[in-house]
Amino acid sequence: MAAETLPGYRGKLRELLTHAKVGVGDVVKINKGDESYEGTLLPRIESADDWHLIIKQKTGYNIGIALVDDLRVEKVGEAVKPEFRPPPLPPVKEGLPKVSIISTGGTIASRVDYVTGGVYAAMSSRDLLSIVPELADIAQIEADILYSVFSENINSDHWEGMAKRVNEKIRQGANGVVITHGTDTMGYSTAALTLAIQNLPVPVIFVGSQRSSDRPSSDSATNLVAVVNAAAHAPFAEVVLGMHEGTSDDSIIFHPGAKVRKCHSSARYAFQTVNASPLARFRDGKIEMIAEHYRPRQDSESVIMNKFEKKVALVKFHPGFNPIIIDTLTDAGFRGIVFEGTGLGHVSETLYDAIGRADKAGVLMGMTSQCIWGRVNMNVYSMGRELTRRGVEPLDDLLPETALVKMMWSLGNTGTAEEAKRLLKTNVVGEYNPRTSYARREK
Amino acid sequence: MAAETLPGYRGKLRELLTHAKVGVGDVVKINKGDESYEGTLLPRIESADDWHLIIKQKTGYNIGIALVDDLRVEKVGEAVKPEFRPPPLPPVKEGLPKVSIISTGGTIASRVDYVTGGVYAAMSSRDLLSIVPELADIAQIEADILYSVFSENINSDHWEGMAKRVNEKIRQGANGVVITHGTDTMGYSTAALTLAIQNLPVPVIFVGSQRSSDRPSSDSATNLVAVVNAAAHAPFAEVVLGMHEGTSDDSIIFHPGAKVRKCHSSARYAFQTVNASPLARFRDGKIEMIAEHYRPRQDSESVIMNKFEKKVALVKFHPGFNPIIIDTLTDAGFRGIVFEGTGLGHVSETLYDAIGRADKAGVLMGMTSQCIWGRVNMNVYSMGRELTRRGVEPLDDLLPETALVKMMWSLGNTGTAEEAKRLLKTNVVGEYNPRTSYARREK
Repeated sequence: MAAETLPGYRGKLRELLTHAKVGVGDVVKINKGDESYEGTLLPRIESADDWHLIIKQKTGYNIGIALVDDLRVEKVGEAVKPEFRPPPLPPVKEGLPKVSIISTGGTIASRVDYVTGGVYAAMSSRDLLSIVPELADIAQIEADILYSVFSENINSDHWEGMAKRVNEKIRQGANGVVITHGTDTMGYSTAALTLAIQNLPVPVIFVGSQRSSDRPSSDSATNLVAVVNAAAHAPFAEVVLGMHEGTSDDSIIFHPGAKVRKCHSSARYAFQTVNASPLARFRDGKIEMIAEHYRPRQDSESVIMNKFEKKVALVKFHPGFNPIIIDTLTDAGFRGIVFEGTGLGHVSETLYDAIGRADKAGVLMGMTSQCIWGRVNMNVYSMGRELTRRGVEPLDDLLPETALVKMMWSLGNTGTAEEAKRLLKTNVVGEYNPRTSYARREK
Repeated sequence: MAAETLPGYRGKLRELLTHAKVGVGDVVKINKGDESYEGTLLPRIESADDWHLIIKQKTGYNIGIALVDDLRVEKVGEAVKPEFRPPPLPPVKEGLPKVSIISTGGTIASRVDYVTGGVYAAMSSRDLLSIVPELADIAQIEADILYSVFSENINSDHWEGMAKRVNEKIRQGANGVVITHGTDTMGYSTAALTLAIQNLPVPVIFVGSQRSSDRPSSDSATNLVAVVNAAAHAPFAEVVLGMHEGTSDDSIIFHPGAKVRKCHSSARYAFQTVNASPLARFRDGKIEMIAEHYRPRQDSESVIMNKFEKKVALVKFHPGFNPIIIDTLTDAGFRGIVFEGTGLGHVSETLYDAIGRADKAGVLMGMTSQCIWGRVNMNVYSMGRELTRRGVEPLDDLLPETALVKMMWSLGNTGTAEEAKRLLKTNVVGEYNPRTSYARREK
């Protein structure tokens, strides 16, 4: 029996199934003590436990059956290759703006494993459209699966691919682009796209969901309706991230792509604009602009600069931080290090030697603050100047995450470290905010 | 001329001064073109630039003179060893509670370098008392310099020393203890002390200042008055951190020691209680309790558990994170790693092998979230379970910084990794908050 016929099954249970010559899709009969179950054997996700098998019963319900000593499995029917029938799509309404939805994965496109209660990536943007049919009243939707990955596995290759695909969609006439993305690293990807695709004629809007679509409190539908509206009608042509503004479904807020961060692990309003003001809000079916200055929709040709250097690390300093980490990066030929220092941009003096060594080896270094809010200022304290003297560039009010992305991009799109440093320090798309903003606290 | 006679002077300027046989404290005459200056040569701080010398003129003003080609230096008077005369202290008022102020350094005890505008550590707690004489009306103050370090240089040795000193002061009859500390790593130290000294009879209050005391907007005095008040009179006996609640001087807020974080690089209200409620507030000269449950002042004997394992790292994950960092820590014999993962507690699958290796090597591993707010939950997504299966412990709503400190402490005070893990997961002093709190946003 080939391995692929039992995806997700491991250990003793796999042995048992292999021995019974059954594979996923086969109709099986399971005997366990006095009990007996019949149904189609379903696959397990790779990461599920290894002591349950799942069958879909004739009733349509899935059940998980735990491995016990007296479990017997018997094949009662061959697998029938399932015929794929996508759900019917709502009719396209001519005359509406064209919005391209590019799916990359995440909770907004995920399903539940009924045995473990865990969630895994599955649904296509096409599925989303069938689940949220009102999208068809807002725009002519074209849905497209680019990736199907949990966002913790997103890397710069994906950013390169997203920029390329967005560019294609715009050239094919999209009036706005939506990218569905897992929320974990969505802030990093949003920052990456602000740099990787520039001179935009239309909005590019990242969206995710903090609650999977099988849950009553899911934010998938509300978020999607808002971002498709914005992609179709918003007056701005920037890379932004649209998610719940607060606990209510009434308001979806659009954060500028380079100034946004996930600041809550589970709340629907997990994302916050940091050191800047949000760009716009969707409320009562309309887009309200918040920011005074923004790039308007225009007749321009988007430009791609989508190379990212991989040998760049974001390093968070802490008391007792061991300098071998910096030495390791230097020795491994890293081209850049972004520090997340304390306060205005400090690390302990025990790191000076390792930083000096990295500087001599030509490693581009920048400083951000683990405070997250505020900006670094390495001229206030003597320790700050000890670092700038060793080649560490203060990165003002850049988020640590955006600083990492910007350094990867700066090194990826230039020839020398000197050019990269210049580009790193240049305010390319509003990633630096020259004015200090205290917008975070209302008090 | 011995090296110590020219502290802070380097390069060409140092050569010039050495050649003129002058040292700090000598009266010098400087000629520069047509200009001539006379005064006492002052030291430079180690990290100042190397092209200015500073003299104190007879007028009392300090000036910096830049190194130019035709600069000439001449000694006109020998250094007189300065006689130290501390400023007179306000009289001690008998009958008031006894408050011990332990100084460890930081902005609240810092001075400005008038040439560069930089700030360096200098003032003693005794100086503080002479600057804020009203403290003498609140309590019988005993001031004490334990360390004089910028807080980015604080490490676990200092935490051990602080716990020891606090314990001594309490045993000597202090009715409350104040620790002045640089704000950069004050949150880490506060968390450390919650664990390192327990069973407290009186409050232990950390305080810092975001603006140095030479600035009109300094928060030193307001903060000190409030924390000395709380040390003398507050009904709680916990380790807390007292700083500005908002932009106004009217309210100082007390954060629970294990749930507090510096969240702004420069604002006076930089500190925030995370995933919990603040403990109390000082307003209109009085302490108002906010938390319903707290440890009250009592007749108890404080207990020290002040060992911290140094071989523990806090590692922030990011897209493109290179697993060699984990391998380096494993190979260097690290005993613990706290991850700052994404969202509910994830890292990319490219790290699984390195994490498995660390697990096999007996490295204790825990997971926190870089979201900061909220808690990790490694049962929601399959990727979370991939990590727990490899020995990564979910650390619920612990701040990453507190998790680091807790792991250092757990490993430092137990014999085996198994015991340490149990202690790490045990809620010792309220560092875990079982209830989800959304206190951060008022909306």
